[in-house]
Amino acid sequence: MTEKSTESKVEEAQTAALELAKYSNDERSRAIRSIADAIDARRDEIIAANATDVEEAERLLEAGEYSRALVDRLKLSPSKLESITDMVRSVAGQDDPLGKTQTARRLDDDLELYKQTVPIGVIGTIFESRPDALVQIAALALKSGNAVILKGGSEASESNRVLFEIIREATSEAPAGWAQLVEARADVDALLEMDDSIDLVMPRGSSAFVSYIQDNTSIPVLGHTEGVCHVYVDSEADLEMATEIAYDAKVQYPAVCNAVETLLVHEEVAEAFLPATIDRYAEAGVELRGDDASRTIVDIDAATEEDWATEYGDLILSITVVDSLEAALSHVNAYGSKHTESIVTEDSDRAATFMRSLDSASVFHNASTRFSDGYRFGLGAEVGISTGKIHARGPVGLEGLTTYQYYLEGDGQVVGTYAGADAKEFVHEDFDGSWTPGSRSR
Amino acid sequence: MTEKSTESKVEEAQTAALELAKYSNDERSRAIRSIADAIDARRDEIIAANATDVEEAERLLEAGEYSRALVDRLKLSPSKLESITDMVRSVAGQDDPLGKTQTARRLDDDLELYKQTVPIGVIGTIFESRPDALVQIAALALKSGNAVILKGGSEASESNRVLFEIIREATSEAPAGWAQLVEARADVDALLEMDDSIDLVMPRGSSAFVSYIQDNTSIPVLGHTEGVCHVYVDSEADLEMATEIAYDAKVQYPAVCNAVETLLVHEEVAEAFLPATIDRYAEAGVELRGDDASRTIVDIDAATEEDWATEYGDLILSITVVDSLEAALSHVNAYGSKHTESIVTEDSDRAATFMRSLDSASVFHNASTRFSDGYRFGLGAEVGISTGKIHARGPVGLEGLTTYQYYLEGDGQVVGTYAGADAKEFVHEDFDGSWTPGSRSR
Repeated sequence: MTEKSTESKVEEAQTAALELAKYSNDERSRAIRSIADAIDARRDEIIAANATDVEEAERLLEAGEYSRALVDRLKLSPSKLESITDMVRSVAGQDDPLGKTQTARRLDDDLELYKQTVPIGVIGTIFESRPDALVQIAALALKSGNAVILKGGSEASESNRVLFEIIREATSEAPAGWAQLVEARADVDALLEMDDSIDLVMPRGSSAFVSYIQDNTSIPVLGHTEGVCHVYVDSEADLEMATEIAYDAKVQYPAVCNAVETLLVHEEVAEAFLPATIDRYAEAGVELRGDDASRTIVDIDAATEEDWATEYGDLILSITVVDSLEAALSHVNAYGSKHTESIVTEDSDRAATFMRSLDSASVFHNASTRFSDGYRFGLGAEVGISTGKIHARGPVGLEGLTTYQYYLEGDGQVVGTYAGADAKEFVHEDFDGSWTPGSRSR
Repeated sequence: MTEKSTESKVEEAQTAALELAKYSNDERSRAIRSIADAIDARRDEIIAANATDVEEAERLLEAGEYSRALVDRLKLSPSKLESITDMVRSVAGQDDPLGKTQTARRLDDDLELYKQTVPIGVIGTIFESRPDALVQIAALALKSGNAVILKGGSEASESNRVLFEIIREATSEAPAGWAQLVEARADVDALLEMDDSIDLVMPRGSSAFVSYIQDNTSIPVLGHTEGVCHVYVDSEADLEMATEIAYDAKVQYPAVCNAVETLLVHEEVAEAFLPATIDRYAEAGVELRGDDASRTIVDIDAATEEDWATEYGDLILSITVVDSLEAALSHVNAYGSKHTESIVTEDSDRAATFMRSLDSASVFHNASTRFSDGYRFGLGAEVGISTGKIHARGPVGLEGLTTYQYYLEGDGQVVGTYAGADAKEFVHEDFDGSWTPGSRSR
C-alpha cells in the first residue's frame, strides 16, 4: 500500500466531515463505544506495540536524549488501558453537543430562523508523546461530529499506529476517512498551510510549541500557552482559609497550568499570614522567592523581575507584599497570563472589584485556582484549556468543538417585500422550540 | 502636540479596556447618545472637513485614480449624517450584550460557578473609505464594552479626524483612550504584529484585503472574504415561487455578498422553469452565462469553469442544470464559499437533505439568499458578516464582540478535598439565576 499524501488525507477528511455532520448522536456514540470494545479486545497487541516504543525511548534515555518523565508518560499498562476505555465510554455517554437550537425566531409569518449547533468540520490536532491523547482526541472529535487529523509524537509512533488502526476498524460504520493519522514532522508544516480545508488546529504541548503553531498558520488555533496564576490574600481575608487555599493552589499538583505561581499578600495581614504559611510550604518542600517587603517578614530568597512572569510548573513560588487591592490588580495585569486568579477576602465589595477588574478566563473568590479545570467545572471531558479569548476560553468541553449554522424556513419570501417605500415590517419574535431541518415548528 | 506612537495608543486602549469592562449598560449607552448629540451639534464642521476629502477625491477621479462610486461613498450630506445619528442612537438602545449569565452551576455546597459574557478587550478595525463606518464601529465597540483602534482609509482622513475628535470629546466620561485613531498605512502593519495586546481584528473591505489581513497576523480575524451564494431549484419546486426567489436574490441588490451568483436547476423542471425566469432577468438587464445543458433550453452565453467560483457582485448570473439533488450539493461544495445557499422545493425531506448536507453559515428553504443579514435576522446593528467558522459566523451582531469569563464563588474550598482516595464528589447541578460579581445567588 502506498502512503497517501497529507493533502489527500485532509481531502478525505473534508468529505467525511460533511457526512459525519448528518450522523445522529446514537450513531456517533455507538461508534465511540466500539472503539472502547476494540481496545479491550486487542489489549495485547497494543501493549506489544507500545513495548517497542518504550524500548527505543529507554535507549534514548540512556543516551541522555529523553527524560524519565517522558518514558513514563509513554508507557501503556493494562490498568492505563482500562482508564482509557473508561474515558472513551464516558465521552460516548455525554449529552449530544450538536443540534441544539440556540435561537428560534419568527422573522415574519411562515418565515422562521433557527440557530443551531453543528460540528466545526475538520480539526487538526498535534499532540505530545502520550498515546492515550490520540484515543481521547479521536473520541471527542467523533462525539462532536468532526473529522480529525491526528499527528502524534514520533516517540509513540508504534503505539499510535496500532491504536489508530483499531479506531479505524472499529468505526467502520462512520464515514470512511473521518480520522486520519499523519506521522512525519514535515506533515505538520503541510497541515498548517491548509487554511482552506482545516477549520481549527488544536496543539497540545509546551507553551513554546503552541506559540510556534500560532505564529505559523492562519488557521484558528485553540490552545493554551502559559498559566501564570495568582492568589491574592486581601486585608480582609480569613487567614486560615487563605493558608489552605495558597497551599492547595501550589502543592496539590504543581506541574499543571492552573497551579499558582505568585502569591500576593496585602501588607496589613502580611505579618500575621506569612510565617505560618511559609511553614506549611516548607513541609512540602516548596522553594520560595520574595520581594523586599516579604523578606523583612520571612527569611526567603530574593525574587527577580523574571520570577513574576514565570510559569514554574514546579514546587517554586514567588511572593510579593502589596499595599492595596489596586496594587495587586496592577501586578496581575502586568505579569499574569489571563488564565486563573483568586482573591481571598471576607469583603464582598473587594471581591467584586477584583473579579470585575481582571481580564482572566477564570476569576475566583475564596477558592483554589486548581478548580480551573473541565472536569471540576462539570464540562465533562476536557478538550483542553484555552488562553485565547475568541471562540472558547478557559477549560473547554465538547461545546468548544462546535459552531452554529443559521437555518431559515420560508414559503417563498423575497427581500423586496421588506424594502423600499411600502416595506413590510419584520416581526422578530423569539419562541421556544427545538427543530430539525426540513420540518416547521408548528 | 507630538503624535503618539501606535504602540502607546494600543497600550492606552488596553488600560481603557479594563476600565470600560466595569461600566454599566446605562453609562455606556449614555456615552453613545452623547456621540449622536455631538454629531448633530457639529454638523457644519463635519461637512466642511468632508468637503476637503471630497475635493481631493474629485481631483483624483479626474486623474483616473478613483472611481465615481468611491467619491459617492465618501460624501457626507446632512441627511446622511442624520441616518448616522439614528443608527448610533439605535445601538445605544439595544439590549446589553454584557453580564449575561450563560451558565450558573453549583459545583458543591457554597461553591458556585458562573459563566458570564464580558467584552473581548481591544479590537483593531481597518475599514474602507466611508466615514460613517468609523462612527458605526465606535458605537458598536462602546456598547459592547470594548476599546477600539480605528484605521480608516486615507481618502477620508479629514472627515475621520473630525469625527474621531467629536467622539473623543463626547465620551469624556468613558475611560480616556478607549478609542484610538491611527492613520498611516505603516500603522496597519504595526497593529498586525501586536498579538499580545490586540484581541481581535475586524477588517472591512474587499475579499482580497480581508485575505491579506488573515495571512499577515496571528491575531484572530473576524471578517468575510467571498460570498458565492447559490439558489437551487429542485425537481419538486413551486416554479413560480422559484422564479421570484431567484429574481430577488440576484436583482434586489446585486452588489452585496448575500446576492446569488449561481442558479442550479434540476433537469426535470429546467424546461418549464428557465424560459420564463430568463425573461424576468432580461427585463432587469441581468447578463446570463450557462452550462451546455441550460443552453439547449435557453439562448444564453456559455459559462467557463471560472464562472462557478466567481463572486460577480453585479447583474451577472451563472446557470447550471443538474440531474439530481446530490449533483447540486456537489456543485455547491466544490465552488461555494460557505456563505448562504437556498433550496426551493415543496418536499420537506429533500429540503432537509439540502440543509443538513451543506456546510454554509446560512442555509435556507424557500426564501431568498438576501435574508442573510443582521438586520433581517433581528440581530440589531450588524458588526459584519463572518465567513469563518470559529467564534462567530454568518451575520454578526453585538454578541460577536463579546466573550465570556468564568467566575467561581467559594468559601475556602481546596481541590485536595475532591482528590485522592476519600475524594468528595462534585454536585454539578445547574440552576437558574443571574449574578453580579461579589454577590452570592442565594
